[in-house]
Amino acid sequence: MDTELAVVLVSGGMDSCVTAAIAAQERRLALLHVNYGQRTEERELRAFHAIADRFHAGHRLVVSIEHLKMIGGSALTDPAIPVPESDPSHPATSDPRSAIPSTYVPFRNAHLLAIATSWAEVIGAKRIYIGAVEEDSSGYPDCREVFYQAFNKVIETGTRPETRVVIVTPLIRMSKAEIVRKGVELNAPLELTWSCYQDNDLACGRCESCALRLKGFREAGVPDPIPYRRDR
Amino acid sequence: MDTELAVVLVSGGMDSCVTAAIAAQERRLALLHVNYGQRTEERELRAFHAIADRFHAGHRLVVSIEHLKMIGGSALTDPAIPVPESDPSHPATSDPRSAIPSTYVPFRNAHLLAIATSWAEVIGAKRIYIGAVEEDSSGYPDCREVFYQAFNKVIETGTRPETRVVIVTPLIRMSKAEIVRKGVELNAPLELTWSCYQDNDLACGRCESCALRLKGFREAGVPDPIPYRRDR
Repeated sequence: MDTELAVVLVSGGMDSCVTAAIAAQERRLALLHVNYGQRTEERELRAFHAIADRFHAGHRLVVSIEHLKMIGGSALTDPAIPVPESDPSHPATSDPRSAIPSTYVPFRNAHLLAIATSWAEVIGAKRIYIGAVEEDSSGYPDCREVFYQAFNKVIETGTRPETRVVIVTPLIRMSKAEIVRKGVELNAPLELTWSCYQDNDLACGRCESCALRLKGFREAGVPDPIPYRRDR
Repeated sequence: MDTELAVVLVSGGMDSCVTAAIAAQERRLALLHVNYGQRTEERELRAFHAIADRFHAGHRLVVSIEHLKMIGGSALTDPAIPVPESDPSHPATSDPRSAIPSTYVPFRNAHLLAIATSWAEVIGAKRIYIGAVEEDSSGYPDCREVFYQAFNKVIETGTRPETRVVIVTPLIRMSKAEIVRKGVELNAPLELTWSCYQDNDLACGRCESCALRLKGFREAGVPDPIPYRRDR
């Protein structure tokens, strides 16, 4: 099989699962998962392996980094900062000067892309797929298209001249409902995914990530196949 | 003391020590060291702490990352790839297609900058100093000025709008001899630094890094204060 390899960042959530399904249409998969001390690390890792098994990924790399937790500054990595519940009329922010939610992990996606790029350079993959969503998202700065365009320039200037790795963001302009529909169309295993920021057993249904996911399924007219807590 | 904070990447080598001395002229220091599974990890960490003590650094962060060793592809992180000895007429390369030496650690400096940026964003530092040298160096792609210019754009687009962190590369256009002279001028503790890629006890004097360092001291007309193996 001489299809080209692609590194796909798979958190275990819905967006990265659909991204892997898109990449699998034309590339051999090298799936990368990064634990960074987030609250639901264990549950997301389980989802990653289940998704990787389903895609029969030939290459898989799990990396654990401790420094984002050491550095802190986010509700996802610092237990002292509560995960906000979603309120569409008053988006939760950690800082009145900023429209960025407290679940933003400072510059997290740059760490993920650096790891993906080093791996791609060594195994000879020419593309890195990441399921970032700009429009219908939490508003994290490192999920915007301009950030990925800038990072492509960093890869071009910071790797061997023959490396030529490019970041691909197939979901960047999609709504959550479009992502659900695309996943259903490609038979992506959405039942294996985990999106909740707060819990590891049943999804809370209340955090920003659950709220965005549920909105997507509702608008797509498709039932969400994962279990939620009853009291939501 | 309300001087602004600056994050300085300090490997423990001569270049980063001089960079810290430059930063210390106008900023309070937050010194960052990253272990990445390189051969001389332990010796470099010792040098880092000695340098940080000398500068009375108020903030210091030591991060250990395992993934650059897991990913491999470099003589510095893979024991199966020998560290080449320096031969100025025939620079050692791992790959005939490329002019990049086998000691290049794929995209390493992007990892270091990502960690520095996250830390700077959380502690409120506005500058990241890194002792990269472009001209008189091993020719690593991630030591070139264009790489740092591109990374500044990634920081601008990927962090909170109020963050505004900028990378500063004071040595980028200096020769090794100019760096030695600047270190002597600023009373930087060059006797505490470690540059050797190969050994942990006495510097080998033969690897690219020792050769560049020795050339710098020779051209500056200053004796190198660290001990070398006799047989070099």
